[in-house]
Amino acid sequence: MDVDVLIAGAGGAGYPAAFRLSKAGFSVIMADPKGELGGNCLYQGCVPSKTVRELTQMIKRAKLLNTNIDVNFQLIQNHKDKVQETRFKQHKSELSETHVEFIKGEVEIVDNHNAIIKGDKDLNVRAKYIILATGSEPFRPKFPGENLCITSDDLYKYKSPIRELPKEMVIIGGGYIAFEAATMFNILGTKVHVLVRSDKILRGIDSKLSSTLLSLMDKNIDIRFNSPVLEVKKNSKSLDVIFSHNGNKELLTADQVLLATGRSPVYPKGIEKTEVKTDRKGIIVDNSIITSVNNIFAPGDINGISMFFHSAVRQSLVAAHNIMSGGTPIDYMDFNSVPKTIFTFPPIAYIGITPDIAKKNGIEIVEASYPFAKDSRAQMYEETEGEIRLFFEKTSLRLIGGWIIGIDAPSLINEIGIAMANGLTARQIADYADQHPMTNEGVSYAARSIF
Amino acid sequence: MDVDVLIAGAGGAGYPAAFRLSKAGFSVIMADPKGELGGNCLYQGCVPSKTVRELTQMIKRAKLLNTNIDVNFQLIQNHKDKVQETRFKQHKSELSETHVEFIKGEVEIVDNHNAIIKGDKDLNVRAKYIILATGSEPFRPKFPGENLCITSDDLYKYKSPIRELPKEMVIIGGGYIAFEAATMFNILGTKVHVLVRSDKILRGIDSKLSSTLLSLMDKNIDIRFNSPVLEVKKNSKSLDVIFSHNGNKELLTADQVLLATGRSPVYPKGIEKTEVKTDRKGIIVDNSIITSVNNIFAPGDINGISMFFHSAVRQSLVAAHNIMSGGTPIDYMDFNSVPKTIFTFPPIAYIGITPDIAKKNGIEIVEASYPFAKDSRAQMYEETEGEIRLFFEKTSLRLIGGWIIGIDAPSLINEIGIAMANGLTARQIADYADQHPMTNEGVSYAARSIF
Amino acid sequence: MDVDVLIAGAGGAGYPAAFRLSKAGFSVIMADPKGELGGNCLYQGCVPSKTVRELTQMIKRAKLLNTNIDVNFQLIQNHKDKVQETRFKQHKSELSETHVEFIKGEVEIVDNHNAIIKGDKDLNVRAKYIILATGSEPFRPKFPGENLCITSDDLYKYKSPIRELPKEMVIIGGGYIAFEAATMFNILGTKVHVLVRSDKILRGIDSKLSSTLLSLMDKNIDIRFNSPVLEVKKNSKSLDVIFSHNGNKELLTADQVLLATGRSPVYPKGIEKTEVKTDRKGIIVDNSIITSVNNIFAPGDINGISMFFHSAVRQSLVAAHNIMSGGTPIDYMDFNSVPKTIFTFPPIAYIGITPDIAKKNGIEIVEASYPFAKDSRAQMYEETEGEIRLFFEKTSLRLIGGWIIGIDAPSLINEIGIAMANGLTARQIADYADQHPMTNEGVSYAARSIF
Amino acid sequence: MDVDVLIAGAGGAGYPAAFRLSKAGFSVIMADPKGELGGNCLYQGCVPSKTVRELTQMIKRAKLLNTNIDVNFQLIQNHKDKVQETRFKQHKSELSETHVEFIKGEVEIVDNHNAIIKGDKDLNVRAKYIILATGSEPFRPKFPGENLCITSDDLYKYKSPIRELPKEMVIIGGGYIAFEAATMFNILGTKVHVLVRSDKILRGIDSKLSSTLLSLMDKNIDIRFNSPVLEVKKNSKSLDVIFSHNGNKELLTADQVLLATGRSPVYPKGIEKTEVKTDRKGIIVDNSIITSVNNIFAPGDINGISMFFHSAVRQSLVAAHNIMSGGTPIDYMDFNSVPKTIFTFPPIAYIGITPDIAKKNGIEIVEASYPFAKDSRAQMYEETEGEIRLFFEKTSLRLIGGWIIGIDAPSLINEIGIAMANGLTARQIADYADQHPMTNEGVSYAARSIF
Repeated sequence: MDVDVLIAGAGGAGYPAAFRLSKAGFSVIMADPKGELGGNCLYQGCVPSKTVRELTQMIKRAKLLNTNIDVNFQLIQNHKDKVQETRFKQHKSELSETHVEFIKGEVEIVDNHNAIIKGDKDLNVRAKYIILATGSEPFRPKFPGENLCITSDDLYKYKSPIRELPKEMVIIGGGYIAFEAATMFNILGTKVHVLVRSDKILRGIDSKLSSTLLSLMDKNIDIRFNSPVLEVKKNSKSLDVIFSHNGNKELLTADQVLLATGRSPVYPKGIEKTEVKTDRKGIIVDNSIITSVNNIFAPGDINGISMFFHSAVRQSLVAAHNIMSGGTPIDYMDFNSVPKTIFTFPPIAYIGITPDIAKKNGIEIVEASYPFAKDSRAQMYEETEGEIRLFFEKTSLRLIGGWIIGIDAPSLINEIGIAMANGLTARQIADYADQHPMTNEGVSYAARSIF
Repeated sequence: MDVDVLIAGAGGAGYPAAFRLSKAGFSVIMADPKGELGGNCLYQGCVPSKTVRELTQMIKRAKLLNTNIDVNFQLIQNHKDKVQETRFKQHKSELSETHVEFIKGEVEIVDNHNAIIKGDKDLNVRAKYIILATGSEPFRPKFPGENLCITSDDLYKYKSPIRELPKEMVIIGGGYIAFEAATMFNILGTKVHVLVRSDKILRGIDSKLSSTLLSLMDKNIDIRFNSPVLEVKKNSKSLDVIFSHNGNKELLTADQVLLATGRSPVYPKGIEKTEVKTDRKGIIVDNSIITSVNNIFAPGDINGISMFFHSAVRQSLVAAHNIMSGGTPIDYMDFNSVPKTIFTFPPIAYIGITPDIAKKNGIEIVEASYPFAKDSRAQMYEETEGEIRLFFEKTSLRLIGGWIIGIDAPSLINEIGIAMANGLTARQIADYADQHPMTNEGVSYAARSIF
Repeated sequence: MDVDVLIAGAGGAGYPAAFRLSKAGFSVIMADPKGELGGNCLYQGCVPSKTVRELTQMIKRAKLLNTNIDVNFQLIQNHKDKVQETRFKQHKSELSETHVEFIKGEVEIVDNHNAIIKGDKDLNVRAKYIILATGSEPFRPKFPGENLCITSDDLYKYKSPIRELPKEMVIIGGGYIAFEAATMFNILGTKVHVLVRSDKILRGIDSKLSSTLLSLMDKNIDIRFNSPVLEVKKNSKSLDVIFSHNGNKELLTADQVLLATGRSPVYPKGIEKTEVKTDRKGIIVDNSIITSVNNIFAPGDINGISMFFHSAVRQSLVAAHNIMSGGTPIDYMDFNSVPKTIFTFPPIAYIGITPDIAKKNGIEIVEASYPFAKDSRAQMYEETEGEIRLFFEKTSLRLIGGWIIGIDAPSLINEIGIAMANGLTARQIADYADQHPMTNEGVSYAARSIF
Repeated sequence: MDVDVLIAGAGGAGYPAAFRLSKAGFSVIMADPKGELGGNCLYQGCVPSKTVRELTQMIKRAKLLNTNIDVNFQLIQNHKDKVQETRFKQHKSELSETHVEFIKGEVEIVDNHNAIIKGDKDLNVRAKYIILATGSEPFRPKFPGENLCITSDDLYKYKSPIRELPKEMVIIGGGYIAFEAATMFNILGTKVHVLVRSDKILRGIDSKLSSTLLSLMDKNIDIRFNSPVLEVKKNSKSLDVIFSHNGNKELLTADQVLLATGRSPVYPKGIEKTEVKTDRKGIIVDNSIITSVNNIFAPGDINGISMFFHSAVRQSLVAAHNIMSGGTPIDYMDFNSVPKTIFTFPPIAYIGITPDIAKKNGIEIVEASYPFAKDSRAQMYEETEGEIRLFFEKTSLRLIGGWIIGIDAPSLINEIGIAMANGLTARQIADYADQHPMTNEGVSYAARSIF
């Protein structure tokens, strides 16, 4: 079968390109073993986990009304499944309005232009362009008993068998997945332990940001630093987690052990038969999303640059546009302007250049901040910890980065983000009158503090 | 007493200028009869009403968790008072860090440069510049029994005596205050009737926006159009509201009658002794906030152009900057870029040029929208009604307006607002990757639909 | 022959799309009866006329050095031919680096997808997309002796037979071509008469702009308003031009009569066999450059919207991009942001919204200006007449238009233009420090006058 | 005498602040020993030198018309004087419209708030704020016979005694003043030698830019690298310049020796009585133009950061605004966005981040260029050497720098500059349609090459 474009993977890196190219008159075939659009994000990632998170937040906030909502994890998981079903249905309907041919099956690459879709039956496809959008999966480090652990995929996947709230949970990992789960299950009532291999959390993000987050997380969460896991063992009713600490072997017992040690790219089978190059992070692409083979594109988690659904969607469109332009790029991904949120309690969000990066690169910055302690809405929710912080390049006063720690961070980051992506200056932000009494006010208030 | 600047009113139109000018070395005296900073907004306006609203929203959303939270209005009002206290204290502390002299008292104008502050004792002040920031108050139409009605001020004021949830409430008015209260008390359990004088709600906003809002409000709210009030009468336990409808007299009975018929400017006494000009809306100013007298400024509600706290704050700063420049303007208020939210259930928010205005002015627009029915977060909350809608000028594709109907409107309007205020185009918005899974995604998704 | 794209016309509206689409992998065939790239602009339009103009300016300015340069029109025309040759050669070289097939010949349309190229031999072409880029030609009104007149094409065409400077010239027309020629030949030493049919010049441009230009043109030019031509007759050595004035017949005698009465679209033969619609101005397109037939595009003069080479080039690219996107637009022409220059002595240039348009559309503007009388560089050249004038939308202070009258107008308009096209505000322009001592300083100086 | 503001120096760093502050109601006294506004720039700097340059360019270009214009240096200098007179008069008239008190005299600082103006008689002044705007002067290295050399001040000053064109000129220096003079006098007919101390010219600018300029300068100019001057001696009719080269003493003879070895700040007398700090370059200020003493400001050449008239003017306004705000900054100088032109033949201009800086700071850039060889207008003038080159930050494609080598550089830099200062991206520039046939076209053409 001859097509213009073959897309391996129907997640956020795959289907937006499929829809866009189909609309532009390209023949498109897209395959995914899940048989559903939406990818990991929808099937077992951001959508279900944030659904649980929103309900958790409601439970937490109900205390303001002197109300103790009984945590019914079964109900929470049901609600999550329902949201997922709604979205599966929605994607089906969107798909049906296009000419994209979608096949449940795995793509096996034959060469730069050929592949086999392994579905109900094998289908040979010859394509002018190939988009590799096979995403990522939880990384599973090797230790005895690793198979006894669950990952976030198990927790959040559609129809997850985990319908009972763990009483005690050990989380292995020091990244965002670990702490999103830790802070959430802690609120739901689980006793949470986190085993962090090194002496700091959230490597890769600004040190002041991560240390502030650490200081704001509920002290009820038991975080153990410098604690690499040695073994997980099943005992009668629960699991024993043995880990090393200061040269000693220590032990924790839990009914669930969550492995949250990052994610790895999922390469399609046969990728080695192309000249596509990879590195430690994934398939090498530049900001045109073109791989080392000029008819093959690799948007999304598979390139490991910016592993977020919203980043994947935009990358997917960049790939589509560059296919429309015959492979001589006409669109480029601005990786630096992708907002990033860590959905902990409290949440944090950040974008662009933060002080650690600025210092490293010799960029002089002017900082401007707004503490939520002063914010009306934060006061209404009694969530006054944290801040909005903006980073301006010193000479131009152009916004080059920012973060939010605390209430509404995942939403607020976008006002900052769109301003930063488009080169706005402190004055332009200061002159805008954000809606009162919303936390957004802090954005302009911070900028005004410079003048 | 000689000062550089006299400020009448310590609300959002007053204290930002006071702080700014004091920081610039001007001697500033500010007076307000409330004896507190924050004005109507804090004392009886947006802050307390939105506090109640946030708790109401929590109660509504708790149903997702199969939880029926008992409405305890006393507790809600207590929480509101607490937020107000926090902010009074905060403003006191902010004030103490400045050199502004603050007096509890009313300002009576003597001439363009002189005034008496009527406080504990009279204080004669001669000022180079005067800022009139005396704000607005609920308008009370005249009809028999009008004095039996409460206004939003009574409901939300600090230590409001209204601590019991009305069982039945008649709201007189068709504007935003009427429907914010109507939709909120309806959720809290009050049986709400709204008497609208004319045949439409929310005059002054885009007709499609108001009609969509009308269609989305809970049908349990009893809205009566073309129903001017004739009289309110006290009976044994409650109030009778007599109104005209289709030539007939009709009657409703309620335990509270809320008068929500707009707000009027509060002029300082003696204003007629200056050459400051007023019109139907308030004191006439242009976008430099200077009145017809070149040393007198009138930011905020008193000019009636844009009666919102956040608008007042920015206007106050514009006035301050223009005093710093000796009255030859150096800063200007962009009234068109002020976001406006109506905190109904569902809420709506809008900014800039909407289709009605565009049509009237012969501006060709391109519309782009995103229905919340498709939105992950809206689905999580099962609040999928409504949309994000952007308006682009046809030739430049520059964003010139937008609205949001539904979930997160009061926050989302700011991402749209800062983009619009700074002249961003559809492409610039489309190329930004909004954080997933937040409703903000709809902003870039809408813009992408154009390309 | 089957191709992806057929392009009729190899001028500014044609070849940029050809090159862009070819680069994107589309097969492209382009035909033009001239057999050269560059179209009317290069063959007989802007390039040769501006070449003559630059030399004329040099002659005029030499007076500053007490030097009278003898006007050698033969030499001037030789230089012009040389510039044209250089560019023909350059375009050939550029073409040779693409896969575009270029044919000398005329395109005759057969239907929405088929055409015949009438070259050395007929070539039938079937194309997925057709770009009609056949441009425009001087409009020749009908009157006796019209054939005795020359047009600007005759004057400036490559190897033009006109190598001798006319001693006396009658120019028929009141538009920009008429006055560009009038002011230029006047400097070169020709006695110039202009016959304007109506009572004003340069219809379609702002009235204050045209009246200022009129007042600044050399009084030695004999402009006759309300003077429609009746007949042109040959006498022994020269031409008699008979025209009507105030009910009388009047007569002028000249050795050249230049017909400068506007330009009309040149439709390709057979266009009536498609469903492409036209109006008074040309082929109807919107800002996606798509005609009423969705696989046919019409950039440049043929649509009559914005008859300038630089506009045509950008429109050509818009068409190319929208072909790359399969006809669902991905790029749009911002017709309002095209700078327009009238290369008179003194020149004028303008862009966007000028006061006449603002008034008509109810847009409130703030004007800011800078007189060249104050400008260092204008003083150096003793060309101090005229001004830079900026128009800001009153509320946002966003730049929405501007003009320059006088020195360096054709260049300066671009600093204003790029600022306007991108929504910059008065403050952003004011804060930029334009290079001293260049006329550009006036741009920021004008904006600064607002603050 | 008590004033709000004392300004030492009436050049580009002084009078704009004087005018601005006076308009804002501040009492201002300004003193300058020249007794004229305009400073070094007008008296002996950019204005007169560029006047001579424009006439020189005319002489050069006249060759296109087969015309050899006789160089009459007396006439050129007369024209220059006339331009200066016009501007002196203009400034007087501008001054008379303000309330600024202007005194011919020198300012001697007494302490942070007090100074004596040494004019016709001594005047003691006590000022709230002091602006030090005393500029710079040519640096004169010490060697025997240094006093026999002239500087650019001598050449260009009002009523300069140098009215005869030097037959042979030795220029000492390797900076922009040296090469502006060298290339200009070379065209006028002087035999020019340049003695450069080191092995490269124009230190401090991008190495590729300076080497390209070097390669494009007329080979007739005799440039000697590694040639420090040892002595200048008078012989009967001319001057002998003895310099070292490769360990040898060499000699050149000339009728004029121009010392062009940079400029040094001119500190006001008594500056050591304040706490104002200086470094190697001049008075230390940050981008608020405030010195280490918070009521003293130092805009312009005296701070040595950006020694250009247009930079000084903007710095002067920044100082004024920050005085208006009581010394807590409200305005900041964007030193990085100041365009810089070297008025050589050919000229070069540059702004922002160039490759050398990018490399040093680890900024990844995308370059886009346009050679003047392809430019219509460059072809008309047969000045086709050089290019427009834009530098975009790789991820955002935001314009962060640019240069122009060749025709129209001093004007073109402003279109690039205003785009860069305001954060425009490659796409925004590409989508603008620059006026044809102007060299500005190269700006958008360069940007388009990326898409």
